[in-house]
Amino acid sequence: MTEPRDHTGERLDHRVRRSWTPAGGQDAILPPHATRWLASKTGLTEQSTPAAPDSALAVGEPDLPDVARKALESVVGTDHLLRSRDDRLGRTGGLSYLDLLRHRGTGALTVPDAVVLPADPGQVQRVVEVCAEHGVGLVPFGGGTSVVGGVQALRGTKESVIVLDLCRLDKLVSVDPVSRLAVLQAGVVAPDAERLLAAHGLTLGHVPQSFERATIGGFAATRSSGQASAGYGRFEDMVEGVRMATPRGEWRLGVSPASAAGPDLRQLVMGSEGAFGVLTEVTLRVRTRPAARRYEGFVLDGWSRGANAVRELAQQRVLADVTRLSDPHETDLAFALSGGWKTELMRRYLRLRGVLDPCLLVLGWEGASDAEVASRRRATLRALRRHRGVSLGTVVGEKWRHGRFAGPRQRDALLDLGVCVETLETATYWSTVDTLRSAVRAALVDSLAGSSRTPIVACHISHAYETGASLYFTTLVPRDADDPIGQWERAKAAACEAISSNGPLGTISHHHAVGVDHAPYLPAEIGPLGVDVLAAVKRELDPEGVLNPGKLLGRPPS
Amino acid sequence: MTEPRDHTGERLDHRVRRSWTPAGGQDAILPPHATRWLASKTGLTEQSTPAAPDSALAVGEPDLPDVARKALESVVGTDHLLRSRDDRLGRTGGLSYLDLLRHRGTGALTVPDAVVLPADPGQVQRVVEVCAEHGVGLVPFGGGTSVVGGVQALRGTKESVIVLDLCRLDKLVSVDPVSRLAVLQAGVVAPDAERLLAAHGLTLGHVPQSFERATIGGFAATRSSGQASAGYGRFEDMVEGVRMATPRGEWRLGVSPASAAGPDLRQLVMGSEGAFGVLTEVTLRVRTRPAARRYEGFVLDGWSRGANAVRELAQQRVLADVTRLSDPHETDLAFALSGGWKTELMRRYLRLRGVLDPCLLVLGWEGASDAEVASRRRATLRALRRHRGVSLGTVVGEKWRHGRFAGPRQRDALLDLGVCVETLETATYWSTVDTLRSAVRAALVDSLAGSSRTPIVACHISHAYETGASLYFTTLVPRDADDPIGQWERAKAAACEAISSNGPLGTISHHHAVGVDHAPYLPAEIGPLGVDVLAAVKRELDPEGVLNPGKLLGRPPS
Repeated sequence: MTEPRDHTGERLDHRVRRSWTPAGGQDAILPPHATRWLASKTGLTEQSTPAAPDSALAVGEPDLPDVARKALESVVGTDHLLRSRDDRLGRTGGLSYLDLLRHRGTGALTVPDAVVLPADPGQVQRVVEVCAEHGVGLVPFGGGTSVVGGVQALRGTKESVIVLDLCRLDKLVSVDPVSRLAVLQAGVVAPDAERLLAAHGLTLGHVPQSFERATIGGFAATRSSGQASAGYGRFEDMVEGVRMATPRGEWRLGVSPASAAGPDLRQLVMGSEGAFGVLTEVTLRVRTRPAARRYEGFVLDGWSRGANAVRELAQQRVLADVTRLSDPHETDLAFALSGGWKTELMRRYLRLRGVLDPCLLVLGWEGASDAEVASRRRATLRALRRHRGVSLGTVVGEKWRHGRFAGPRQRDALLDLGVCVETLETATYWSTVDTLRSAVRAALVDSLAGSSRTPIVACHISHAYETGASLYFTTLVPRDADDPIGQWERAKAAACEAISSNGPLGTISHHHAVGVDHAPYLPAEIGPLGVDVLAAVKRELDPEGVLNPGKLLGRPPS
Repeated sequence: MTEPRDHTGERLDHRVRRSWTPAGGQDAILPPHATRWLASKTGLTEQSTPAAPDSALAVGEPDLPDVARKALESVVGTDHLLRSRDDRLGRTGGLSYLDLLRHRGTGALTVPDAVVLPADPGQVQRVVEVCAEHGVGLVPFGGGTSVVGGVQALRGTKESVIVLDLCRLDKLVSVDPVSRLAVLQAGVVAPDAERLLAAHGLTLGHVPQSFERATIGGFAATRSSGQASAGYGRFEDMVEGVRMATPRGEWRLGVSPASAAGPDLRQLVMGSEGAFGVLTEVTLRVRTRPAARRYEGFVLDGWSRGANAVRELAQQRVLADVTRLSDPHETDLAFALSGGWKTELMRRYLRLRGVLDPCLLVLGWEGASDAEVASRRRATLRALRRHRGVSLGTVVGEKWRHGRFAGPRQRDALLDLGVCVETLETATYWSTVDTLRSAVRAALVDSLAGSSRTPIVACHISHAYETGASLYFTTLVPRDADDPIGQWERAKAAACEAISSNGPLGTISHHHAVGVDHAPYLPAEIGPLGVDVLAAVKRELDPEGVLNPGKLLGRPPS
């Protein structure tokens, strides 16, 4: 496979990769009742803000010296060094709201000078070495789903920058069924990973919202966390070993499930976002595919009750594999997007049951048998009982499960309608969860509200731990036509300040990573010494500073 | 508290701290039938090899320049800088077999030039800075229970070396009952930690064999793993935050239960063994104290069946909180040390049940209620059934639980008898567990067997994971009177070579850490790049190279 394709085999053009919309995807369409509701809530008046035509996008000529180009071609072959406008545009930026705006004609694109498609870990290693030798910036690129600028083709201190697209590293290298280990190449997209493992009766169980496009290497490089993290763990919990190409040579880590042989350096590689090296293979803990599952919707009355319930499930260690609590704003949004008489009936039913401030709780259990699922469900519901959860049954649960990757797709429809739509996330300890939620919510509302605009700020807990939880915010507000980029940049900065102040209150990212956008807030979280340590590691592994310029550490370490 | 005391309040002299024998401890005595059995099995003839008198130990004069001494005294006060022979001997080395031999008069002791007892994290920070300024080596010292040379007072490139004893940092700093977090100072010994937390209805649940003496800081610095790791996790799984004194200033980490804000630097601190800084506070995940427990003994027929059973429990995620499988050699040893007619009856009973090659399996469940323990026990036993485990009941389980810290104490009696007795441990993936066990066993047997000496090499799995398990070896052999140190050094080297070859086959340490002893084998495990990365981090945090010289990285980084 020499060109990027999605997991259905469809060739990806840069718009498709960028916008998430598979051809003909029905769930990308916003129903009329949802549009009307949005208008009434937010003051949305604009009804059509189409993207600028592709030809209108400003794309400079590639600026890669011949000597570097030839050296790269000698590694990957001339067919696998791409310089066309479309090929470069297809690996320009990620999938944040601002990335999408830029591709629609608002704001400057950071287009790479070339795209290199190595065939295997050996070629990746040589590409990295060529870039170090010629001082060419190198941006590792998997699914291109970063929402924090993690794949921006920034030049840093270099004249040229290439994107190293890992799409040809799409193989299952080996399976050890006894140890339940699988070695996957870094460019394998998640649906392919599941398909390849299913042939062995195995699963990874990693289902972040980026599932359809994101890659194994990207998950590891960014410390991804999937919707079933309570059951399957965060991605770093699944990683047993890594193989990474660095300018100083290949680095392999991982010889046992646990070790006291010094610091766990795998945990230094995970989250390094391509700044220390390019992951080429990842050894993963896998499980047998679940034979049974049950997804179910519940409603709890009020955020405090809901959060306390999830906390108790976590601390009693009876969390469902998927445990997702929406706050009243997100619950309202979900009901409104569903619409129809069934939703209205549900609202009335909940009022009758005395639920004044409904918070949707989706629980999903997966297991080897119906009996196992039933037994684990009983343990969860026993702990939930005193919080008076009202069951909405499996229809709501299954509906969530089937639509769970649709969110990013609906953004295209929302962008066409003139909506500013973006998400951000954090995590903190339980005693600070309410404070953090209020602070971020206030920051977003205050910075986005205007005379004619009322933002919707919805929040959910999707990852719960014994000591704390993640908070995921979705914001919708009519776009400021005069300054669409500034509008969101100010709101995002206000939210990040709220997270990073007073302690900080929470982590600047629970599962989206640092990229460019969060780099200014990293020192508040890990201290100046933490930044110095990361810079020292980078200097050691990437002395020329060619790897993913401007990510993680912000500017090149001095 | 200004002087080191054990958790019963008894003042520690250097022999007590070193030998583990609390005054009057009955379980430190080896019964006569055990001695006879050992003699018949191993060829042991020597019956009395007492330690040399204390006065015979070669202890040099302290060599700490006045200017450094005064600077240290200005931080901690003159009362808390100790220079007496006894005070320095009490912090000389750890608790390995070779450490014990050295304290008995065989081999050279590495005695520090002074012992400093700071009162709090602020004083620790200033002591670290004074040492950096004056070029004095500094060895952080908690319980002194290292068995890999981790607290040897080596000088490295420095003229002088002090021990920084953390015994005054013995406080519970704060508890957050909502988030289930506790901040403990680094010098708190494990029994005190449990006592302090019990006042809040909480527990840590960390019970390594070193429990009675080891400290919170030591657990974190060495990535310790307790006997109930399947239930409570490894120590690094419990650590949410750290506070560390480094020559470049204080470093605090940990703001949320999980994060994607770059690499997890807490995992770089854990396992750093005092080479990057001195831990002063650790923020830990705690749990409610279990209200119910059940410990039970089982026997499985043969190592393969036993290991497969434990693997299935781990992969089906129904491990008991304590899960410990002895191989036939260790089972034989345990039965022989128990002795008596009850044991003989048990052997006959097992033969009648068709168990030809008994492997003892101890399972322990702890929980909030008898019902919870019963439910989890049912799940474990359901998975165990097809492996035809024979129950020995709760008496065997409780006996193990009560005697589980006695092993190290019995070493004193064995040393007096002329036995070379030591343990070592590793871990690997399930598909390699048998190969690794055979290889290490063969290395130990081959290097220790002689015309008049037959070694006992016993092994158990005490920490099981979905993808693999630890292997813990206990070796007993008559001491070579002519070359007692060389005898064990050669055996240990052979075992380490077996672990580090062919892949490597396993990790050089699952829970004992690197120290001095394992440093030569670290490059095989983490690669030369891994060693370079650790050295770069050390240069960044400890540019003068004063922190715990010779540990982790072996020699000072260039």
